Amino acid sequence: MMIQKLRQQIRNGEFASPTSGAAGDLVQANVVILPKVYAFDFLLFAMRNQKSVPIIEVLENGRTESRYAPGSDIRTDVPKYRIYKDGELVETVLEIKDYWQDDFVTFLIGCSFTFEQAILKAGIPIKHMDEKKNVAMYNTSVQNKRAGIFQGEMVVSMRPFKSKYVEKVSEITGQFPNMHGTPVHIGTPEAIGISDLNTPDYGDAIAVAEDEVPVFWGCGVTPQNAALKAKPSMMISHEPGHMFITDINNKAYLEMTN
Amino acid sequence: MMIQKLRQQIRNGEFASPTSGAAGDLVQANVVILPKVYAFDFLLFAMRNQKSVPIIEVLENGRTESRYAPGSDIRTDVPKYRIYKDGELVETVLEIKDYWQDDFVTFLIGCSFTFEQAILKAGIPIKHMDEKKNVAMYNTSVQNKRAGIFQGEMVVSMRPFKSKYVEKVSEITGQFPNMHGTPVHIGTPEAIGISDLNTPDYGDAIAVAEDEVPVFWGCGVTPQNAALKAKPSMMISHEPGHMFITDINNKAYLEMTN
Repeated sequence: MMIQKLRQQIRNGEFASPTSGAAGDLVQANVVILPKVYAFDFLLFAMRNQKSVPIIEVLENGRTESRYAPGSDIRTDVPKYRIYKDGELVETVLEIKDYWQDDFVTFLIGCSFTFEQAILKAGIPIKHMDEKKNVAMYNTSVQNKRAGIFQGEMVVSMRPFKSKYVEKVSEITGQFPNMHGTPVHIGTPEAIGISDLNTPDYGDAIAVAEDEVPVFWGCGVTPQNAALKAKPSMMISHEPGHMFITDINNKAYLEMTN
Repeated sequence: MMIQKLRQQIRNGEFASPTSGAAGDLVQANVVILPKVYAFDFLLFAMRNQKSVPIIEVLENGRTESRYAPGSDIRTDVPKYRIYKDGELVETVLEIKDYWQDDFVTFLIGCSFTFEQAILKAGIPIKHMDEKKNVAMYNTSVQNKRAGIFQGEMVVSMRPFKSKYVEKVSEITGQFPNMHGTPVHIGTPEAIGISDLNTPDYGDAIAVAEDEVPVFWGCGVTPQNAALKAKPSMMISHEPGHMFITDINNKAYLEMTN
């Protein structure tokens, strides 16, 4: 599907689903929107936890259009938003024009959905896509590095692969350093504080078969969680799995930033 | 000289000179100190202009000790400071305890002095060091990417080398990505808006001989200049060439950050 058509459907509220697989190899982004008073602490938190919080773009206060998606509007072009006040989820909405404040700063954060197409292209199936589910995401016991009011634990996404594919998958995702890059852990959920793979904290449960290995990547829910624990007066994020989609692929992104 | 002894001398005001060559291969840093209200814009400016403003550490408000120099105090351990109010230089001082505010955020920015030792080790002489001068620094016509109140043009440091050394020097400095890395320009000062190499805007003039090529690197005066143009109510920086020196070398720095 052409991204412009998809973006229009998202803007009109006609597409309000997880975006894994929805836009080919285009760069997808997690979204965190905060009043400027929190922006320094958050940007520093991102710098200190780059594997979990790889910043792909900052729209400073006054800006609503991504340079990687000309004509886009961050207030309407995410499939589903979560509105938080003082760290509490107060509403889930399809657009946020009524909530917008002039001092809002938007952080677009790399997302592992971006590298899924490259895995598929290598002939390696991705289970949650085949099952038309959202990716499974888990809280872990791995501490983030604190910055100001932001701290907390790392959140990861998990995809099961047959063991013969794990090395190749790891190598492919390493080519996407700003989309969480290589896995943060392979194989043993307990080692990172996950007690039961069948009960993900976000997204959908995906069964891991006998001959499969669970592979874990950094996840954009990490900054969302850190922000929630900090209890900012106001925060808006995407609904987990429901990303902002840019106009460009990873190759073009790397060229534009280097 | 042991870094602890040198730091003590700096702290006591006994060493108030340029630090090029003063501390072997230890990481040296440019210093920009700003009230927190400007910190987000400045950190974003750094992210958008990494070649000129490679952040090696941020000491958020409340912190005065670098993690790369345990026991250090940013209020006393820079050889010479410049105090600016509303963008005007009001004083040059040896320590800043009387000026310190609880909301100050300190940015330590990579410095090309860090890679000089590696160039010397390769058997390549560095002229300003042989002549016991400060490095030559120039304003250019190369525009920085704007972030909030911060903008302006790139400032560069210049070192002349015999042409047979230029490729090697470029390769060596590429191993120091957070200390400005590879040159931003080689050979033609006019191409980056420098009309006369004999009149540097900062530091000392270094003659470029017939068989030498001027090589230009990003420079920590860039963020200082950008900050000045933004006219923050208060800003403190190092005197150009008078750096903060850490306890670790580039190799240890890269290991600690990766």
